[in-house]
Amino acid sequence: MIKTKSFELLKKSGFARVGILHTAHGNIETPCFMPVGTLGTVKTLSPAELIEINAQIILGNTYHLYLRPGIEVIKNAGGLHKFINWQKPLLTDSGGFQVFSHSKLRKITEEGVEFTSHIDGSKHFFSPEKVIEIQQIFGSDIMMVLDDCAPYPVEHDYAKSSLEMTLRWAKRSKAEFEVRRLKYEENINFQLPTSNFQLLFGIVQGSTYSDLRKESAQKTVELDFNGYALGGLSVGEPNELMYEIISETEKFLPENSPRYLMGVGTPEDLWECVERGIDMFDCVLPTRNARNGQAFTSTGKINIRNAEYKNDFLPLDSDCGCYTCKNFTRAYLSHLFRCDEILGLRLATLHNLTFMLNLVQRIRESIKTEKFHQGKKDFFKKYRTY
Amino acid sequence: MIKTKSFELLKKSGFARVGILHTAHGNIETPCFMPVGTLGTVKTLSPAELIEINAQIILGNTYHLYLRPGIEVIKNAGGLHKFINWQKPLLTDSGGFQVFSHSKLRKITEEGVEFTSHIDGSKHFFSPEKVIEIQQIFGSDIMMVLDDCAPYPVEHDYAKSSLEMTLRWAKRSKAEFEVRRLKYEENINFQLPTSNFQLLFGIVQGSTYSDLRKESAQKTVELDFNGYALGGLSVGEPNELMYEIISETEKFLPENSPRYLMGVGTPEDLWECVERGIDMFDCVLPTRNARNGQAFTSTGKINIRNAEYKNDFLPLDSDCGCYTCKNFTRAYLSHLFRCDEILGLRLATLHNLTFMLNLVQRIRESIKTEKFHQGKKDFFKKYRTY
Repeated sequence: MIKTKSFELLKKSGFARVGILHTAHGNIETPCFMPVGTLGTVKTLSPAELIEINAQIILGNTYHLYLRPGIEVIKNAGGLHKFINWQKPLLTDSGGFQVFSHSKLRKITEEGVEFTSHIDGSKHFFSPEKVIEIQQIFGSDIMMVLDDCAPYPVEHDYAKSSLEMTLRWAKRSKAEFEVRRLKYEENINFQLPTSNFQLLFGIVQGSTYSDLRKESAQKTVELDFNGYALGGLSVGEPNELMYEIISETEKFLPENSPRYLMGVGTPEDLWECVERGIDMFDCVLPTRNARNGQAFTSTGKINIRNAEYKNDFLPLDSDCGCYTCKNFTRAYLSHLFRCDEILGLRLATLHNLTFMLNLVQRIRESIKTEKFHQGKKDFFKKYRTY
Repeated sequence: MIKTKSFELLKKSGFARVGILHTAHGNIETPCFMPVGTLGTVKTLSPAELIEINAQIILGNTYHLYLRPGIEVIKNAGGLHKFINWQKPLLTDSGGFQVFSHSKLRKITEEGVEFTSHIDGSKHFFSPEKVIEIQQIFGSDIMMVLDDCAPYPVEHDYAKSSLEMTLRWAKRSKAEFEVRRLKYEENINFQLPTSNFQLLFGIVQGSTYSDLRKESAQKTVELDFNGYALGGLSVGEPNELMYEIISETEKFLPENSPRYLMGVGTPEDLWECVERGIDMFDCVLPTRNARNGQAFTSTGKINIRNAEYKNDFLPLDSDCGCYTCKNFTRAYLSHLFRCDEILGLRLATLHNLTFMLNLVQRIRESIKTEKFHQGKKDFFKKYRTY
């Protein structure tokens, strides 16, 4: 039985919201940004560093972790938290998007999706039930249902049948989830490794069609999940269209459940999407950008590889208090990047994630103090976008 | 004027010694192991981590830092300590060995060595005086003289003329060092960026010929340096021969000066060479091995990539208290290495350096308590070598 009180809405300001999401490994203040730890590590960082920069929750990828190290190793470790030494909340995605974006060959049927590993070409099969089983073995605090991810752009008909498949799979996921929970609660021949309660989120699809988003949202909500994700966005459509679709979808989502915008986004996106009612975000951008030498600063994005930083003895961002900015100059970071030194990747990643986590913290504060619009205006006045 | 009291010998046990080396950035207890930070970063680690694992001193490479970021950037930063954010002692080598091992084209004359950059093929020239100037700009606590590194194996005649060139260069280095010190002390139109006193070490060469090592040692000592390095060892000769040459050379080195064995070595070498009177070591082995998945443990070296560790939920070394061993399993490290995740390189490096630093600490303790031989025996009883 799903615990219906997993989310508390604390405050609203327009559509922007502050809330608390309760999980088996602690509470998460929303809006939140979730650093991505695809293979059970947020690239270049240690768990201790993530704690220090106040990451409330991190994300792991079911597709990747299923392939490597595989579910047996994670089961033997006593779950994903223990395997990776992370005691705070963990969300795992369902693999739907990764099968769609990483696997060269995939065959989608009513039963599920057959796909080949991007590593060795071996064949695998995910059904909605299998994906629930995997995430229960992982002990994820927040599990996602398997969804069918349509490409972008896509015809209305294709998007409609895709979202309907996603709905049928969502129903099966929920059923499997409930059966497993009952078995667990009755303690019948079944072990959950790390957590005595897990949350399950549904995923709203429908591409950029308002009518389909409405249908998907309404029917997913009928299935009654602990939260609702918006999938299939930030996949190539214009930003304005994404914002519009969020607003169109938000109307049909229950106020007392968290809304998670998958795979988004930039610092700008955080303000825009919180303003439209989003509570949770994840994105590889801050970590991937960092490894490319692109750093977020309070005045905009800079590329530390640019020649101008070779003799610049200021910190990356003078407004930032992270380990990188307190201890190192742009000149040193520039040197590390030019020499392909790993410390450069680490320091830039630490800074970019600090930037994102401080930003959502600032957004939360602005909602709490009823200064969201002023806060947003102040941010954009300083932050140059190109 | 060289401060002659830079080294205090505290205790001897046979030829093994415990001492304290005083530098502008603090004291170093010897025997010591110096992690190598070729380009101004000990690969994969942060300065904070090096402090935490009790690194007393680290090493930078003059050849590499001269090429990248170049002396202008380091001068503008206010010296190497400030540039890399390292407040403890720093030793820089002279570039002699790197010119010998990295540069494809080099021309050695009485004046110095012309070489091409391994990065872009550009031409450069190091004279003994230039190398002193560079290291004074760096503000290195311990500077090394430019030496001519003979290959191995090498004819007696070649080795003899090479060491004699090294001696003439050493004399010029010392003279330049004194002139610059006087200028500095008189404050005449000259600035040292970070330190008010620097130490200069001579380098003993002579390949594997006892008579040449004797000649080189005696004549280098006549020039009166703050310490004496043994160069040209661990370059392919059998271990036993290296140990023999150390003993042959040690006789001719003053007791009240530190002896530094360059580029050595393994955990086994540390015991063997301290036993023969060596006080200081540096080696890329623990950091390079770590990045290849090879970890030192109290029972010997293991390769974390081996299949047996995929489901091994013990720490890397149960006797170790480092962050890696306290928080992660071999199974997780195995996973990180198989996925080429940077965290794997970090955790293995942190562990290997902890191992080496704890080992020299243990060696120091064994000398202080007059249990060096028992300590060595205990170590080798447990540590398997192949």
